[in-house]
Amino acid sequence: MKVITLTTDFGISDPFVSIMKGIILNICPATTIVDITHNISPQDIRQGSFILKSSYCYFPKGTIHLCVVDPSVGSLRKPILIQTENYFFIGPDNGLFTYIIEDENILTVIELTEQNYWLKNISQTFHGRDIFSPVAAYLAKGEKLNGFGKPVKKEELVKVPIYKPIKTGNNYIGKVQYIDHFGNIITNIPNDLVKSKIQGKIRNIEFTGLMSSFAFIEPNKLGSINGSSGYIELFVNKGNAAKLTGAQVNDNIEFHIVK
Amino acid sequence: MKVITLTTDFGISDPFVSIMKGIILNICPATTIVDITHNISPQDIRQGSFILKSSYCYFPKGTIHLCVVDPSVGSLRKPILIQTENYFFIGPDNGLFTYIIEDENILTVIELTEQNYWLKNISQTFHGRDIFSPVAAYLAKGEKLNGFGKPVKKEELVKVPIYKPIKTGNNYIGKVQYIDHFGNIITNIPNDLVKSKIQGKIRNIEFTGLMSSFAFIEPNKLGSINGSSGYIELFVNKGNAAKLTGAQVNDNIEFHIVK
Amino acid sequence: MKVITLTTDFGISDPFVSIMKGIILNICPATTIVDITHNISPQDIRQGSFILKSSYCYFPKGTIHLCVVDPSVGSLRKPILIQTENYFFIGPDNGLFTYIIEDENILTVIELTEQNYWLKNISQTFHGRDIFSPVAAYLAKGEKLNGFGKPVKKEELVKVPIYKPIKTGNNYIGKVQYIDHFGNIITNIPNDLVKSKIQGKIRNIEFTGLMSSFAFIEPNKLGSINGSSGYIELFVNKGNAAKLTGAQVNDNIEFHIVK
Repeated sequence: MKVITLTTDFGISDPFVSIMKGIILNICPATTIVDITHNISPQDIRQGSFILKSSYCYFPKGTIHLCVVDPSVGSLRKPILIQTENYFFIGPDNGLFTYIIEDENILTVIELTEQNYWLKNISQTFHGRDIFSPVAAYLAKGEKLNGFGKPVKKEELVKVPIYKPIKTGNNYIGKVQYIDHFGNIITNIPNDLVKSKIQGKIRNIEFTGLMSSFAFIEPNKLGSINGSSGYIELFVNKGNAAKLTGAQVNDNIEFHIVK
Repeated sequence: MKVITLTTDFGISDPFVSIMKGIILNICPATTIVDITHNISPQDIRQGSFILKSSYCYFPKGTIHLCVVDPSVGSLRKPILIQTENYFFIGPDNGLFTYIIEDENILTVIELTEQNYWLKNISQTFHGRDIFSPVAAYLAKGEKLNGFGKPVKKEELVKVPIYKPIKTGNNYIGKVQYIDHFGNIITNIPNDLVKSKIQGKIRNIEFTGLMSSFAFIEPNKLGSINGSSGYIELFVNKGNAAKLTGAQVNDNIEFHIVK
Repeated sequence: MKVITLTTDFGISDPFVSIMKGIILNICPATTIVDITHNISPQDIRQGSFILKSSYCYFPKGTIHLCVVDPSVGSLRKPILIQTENYFFIGPDNGLFTYIIEDENILTVIELTEQNYWLKNISQTFHGRDIFSPVAAYLAKGEKLNGFGKPVKKEELVKVPIYKPIKTGNNYIGKVQYIDHFGNIITNIPNDLVKSKIQGKIRNIEFTGLMSSFAFIEPNKLGSINGSSGYIELFVNKGNAAKLTGAQVNDNIEFHIVK
């Protein structure tokens, strides 16, 4: 049984997501469909790319990751299918797959042009329904990759810039990459950049670390910890670090590594 | 494997939806359950009927659509099962199935009266759990329709009024039918009413169109486009048309067709 | 096919839940995964325990209930697996399973210590991913219970206090246990404590009952009804009782039983 995951900015109040699922089950009934999330901020390609990076590799080999954050639907961006050593990715070529291109071994990229695998009537606003879902389902059903369109060079794929911490003297400037549901601030500081001790500040509020558990810091103090996504996170024990600091995505984080 | 879809106003924070799924899987383990949405505004039958209309037909033939927006649960409305040429619909007879009655070829309508297919103890507040879910599951399992209750004439089914654009001279008055997650305004103007050019206003803000893509309009301008649900939509490129205009469901839209 | 349910405070915007699903499907592809809810208020163990109590028993015998509300992740609380006569429960030993311990016939409790069933690298912040999900999946796959760790006495399990109505003279003091999506106020008054007539007040607003349907009370009046979760609920017909009263969880409810 094939797994197809869905990552979109469609929300879960409208019928959009369920329509995609209906189409997939219609073409390939023996599919397990898993929502990654549908709450990407509308049109936020960068956020979508980060969510996808954080989750795709936990799925079974061969999983088809269908991703639709598509502000330019119906205009010039290409609909694409990427095959890597372990997975398939389907969606618009607009930077959503930036981290896939960085992190995975890409075998094939196809621009989706073969209309036999699309719905009959193509809308100008919902290619998630008309193109991407049926292609994902036919792929799950066993169709060959080269049937879906024409090869594209992976060097031609669109990427969003990836921000890494910048060093000046002994100090670094990092960035807020993501803020989660608990208000934990996910930085762009890789866990393995810091051995055991870091000091810094965000919006003039100081933090220290690394702590070995959320529980091991005083109340209302900002701590830092190795995050589960591979980046250092700033947190407040049983509290909300984003609320405490007012931090937002892209805010600067000044820090230095003590050891 | 049978597909059962769920459309409710139960939200996803309470245990209600999962209880329905547990009951279904208990009776018929080989079911694929798909959420259409659980975010129908509480008790908003009209919204539920529109969401259902927009999505049901993308599912495999034979899919059972279980719908519970049920402000009169436990009082006089009938619990019903509708068989159409392609699908089954189960829920309260309160107008939720208005568009199904309009659009589908109805074969049979059954009032659910046979308590053998219900849970043992029927609550006064949660027939989604006690009646509708087990009936859907037994239907998925292969029970015959006429076992569930007694036939009802389709002419007796409750409908909510459907609003269509009204023409006076060269002008029309349409309505806002739905506002989606992106703030796109779904009108009640059928795509095929307008060949290529429309002008109009909503809340004194003018719009033009039809555009061939969200991308092909100036920033912060209100455009119109053939919508994916079969009705013309008003939009702002990478913006939120509902916020720009203050539009709400049922607002009037004045328009005339240029060609 | 095994059913695994998920109950967490992770929300559905972050990739956390989907990562757990990916891991489960990777280890045991033939699993049906059902979300109970991911909208438990952050770190609210009591709310999680109530949601779980309200829903677990509707699932097929043998279902594995995976629950993660885990404010002390990475510190001293034990990761546990509980086998009852009908179900399995996996999560942190912090009170989440209070009602299970009360209501179910517990056969075995295991502290999860056997790292062969965990992911290779254990984070300090996401045991839902690193420990609980893989253990649930290996259990679904057929692993024996005693392989996962060492037995614990059920008397040692952590519980949160359960509040029952307190009688003084002819009057009782009850409590608000939960407020649902519709604003219905779920009390801690068992349905079977009241035969047919109750009077009381909450935040100085009076209610009467029991009503036989939401529909059978005057507009904007607070009524009471036998709730579907086994406790009496306060409601406003087609309205929101929590908004009308300002009620919050843990508020006192004064009442007396008329008959």
